Amino acid sequence: MGRLAILSGAGALPVALAAAHPDAVIVTFAGVDHTHDRPVCEHRFEKMGALFDDLKAQGATDVVFAGGMARPPLDPSAFDATMAGIAPRLVAALQGGDDALLRLVIAVFEEQGFTVRGAHELLPGLTAEEGLLAGPTPSEQQQKDASFATDILLALSPLDVGQGAVVAGGLCLGIETLQGTDALLSFVAATPDKLRRTKGGVLVKAPKRGQDLRVDMPAIGPDTIRNAAAAGLSGVVIAANRVVVLDRDATLAAARDTGLFLLAQAL
Amino acid sequence: MGRLAILSGAGALPVALAAAHPDAVIVTFAGVDHTHDRPVCEHRFEKMGALFDDLKAQGATDVVFAGGMARPPLDPSAFDATMAGIAPRLVAALQGGDDALLRLVIAVFEEQGFTVRGAHELLPGLTAEEGLLAGPTPSEQQQKDASFATDILLALSPLDVGQGAVVAGGLCLGIETLQGTDALLSFVAATPDKLRRTKGGVLVKAPKRGQDLRVDMPAIGPDTIRNAAAAGLSGVVIAANRVVVLDRDATLAAARDTGLFLLAQAL
Repeated sequence: MGRLAILSGAGALPVALAAAHPDAVIVTFAGVDHTHDRPVCEHRFEKMGALFDDLKAQGATDVVFAGGMARPPLDPSAFDATMAGIAPRLVAALQGGDDALLRLVIAVFEEQGFTVRGAHELLPGLTAEEGLLAGPTPSEQQQKDASFATDILLALSPLDVGQGAVVAGGLCLGIETLQGTDALLSFVAATPDKLRRTKGGVLVKAPKRGQDLRVDMPAIGPDTIRNAAAAGLSGVVIAANRVVVLDRDATLAAARDTGLFLLAQAL
Repeated sequence: MGRLAILSGAGALPVALAAAHPDAVIVTFAGVDHTHDRPVCEHRFEKMGALFDDLKAQGATDVVFAGGMARPPLDPSAFDATMAGIAPRLVAALQGGDDALLRLVIAVFEEQGFTVRGAHELLPGLTAEEGLLAGPTPSEQQQKDASFATDILLALSPLDVGQGAVVAGGLCLGIETLQGTDALLSFVAATPDKLRRTKGGVLVKAPKRGQDLRVDMPAIGPDTIRNAAAAGLSGVVIAANRVVVLDRDATLAAARDTGLFLLAQAL
């Protein structure tokens, strides 16, 4: 692998990647939040030609996308020639779900000769092997709830919807949409008690079936655990090897503090 | 049809049924909200034997379930003999989704000799025929969004999840779970602008495929339209003849006031 470029959005993952790859080129985008405290190269989505030129000039051969990137509105009048060339495919991708857009982004970087890496390839231990990571062994009901939540995600997967679902006592309390896991858990937390048949419940996080793990890999972290606890859940189940565990020590500590189980399962 | 009993939960529908059937026995349940202003017979879920005896004594032959009923926790120590006899099947139904429970309720009433009616059979005009009920004709994008939301509902239908979904510009902004449509629309309204690719969006409401329309029929009303407008949506699509339109005049007026379209489609 040659020099790495980290195309960075919000959150802890780009910073962790930068720490593990001190030689990397750090790229951010105007209008996208990031939390790097080392020098960054800020680019614009409208000027992808300039980005490719800059990456090549700096010797980058490999790129990784990391962190959440809200999509700022694109200003077509600012497109450079490269971006104008991509525009027709972009129009098509923008009609589809998130995955359509991300597949296009990967394709465009590959056409430019870059190797697109997944963050999980670059940070050993970023995902979790199968097994109980923290907390009590899930009960039979909790396992059933996890299985039902997984069925919901699988049913939605062909539609490019859903990286998370919450089930409690056989009832679905929420399905993750583009607002993300924390928004889902706030929604679940606001459920009136009288609508919940039982206490507890399980959050399942898994990538969509067939999802390219090099972009938009589902992630959990200490906040996920704390928010799941605040929503009254009993535990969190993640797809083994296919969900990022951000700040693993703090995530496990949060599970211990809240008493929630955290289980990695082959889903 | 003999005398009707209206087993009443919250909302406008039980009141509308009572107005259309002045002779009906009005039944409510301890712990369940209702808005009747005429005399009601309050029963307890734990004493179904007493309910059946009362209905028969009052000459009721037909029953209709109407309005939202949150499930208060059942107190098994208060079960009468009839309820104790139902308990084993109740345990099984409680492990499943809403439909499993409602199918059991229908079966139990039928075993007791009652005919279970759907509210839409008893209130002509309660649902809507196919057609544009109010507002502008949906654009091609809005029709695509409606079609995608419908696909989401169909994918979830075998799992007994989902009577509503919101899609905007090809992105799913929310899927209805047991908290109901208003909670879904509040959730959508709270979506940060930068996550929404486009303005607008469409709410689709439809029963689950194969759902027994005699209970828990999906419903919209003026609040649905106003909340959809507050969530920034452009319109609402309902399954023709299979979704209750509560307070139709006010619902159509709300669509006119907010500029939203309201379309009934064969879904």
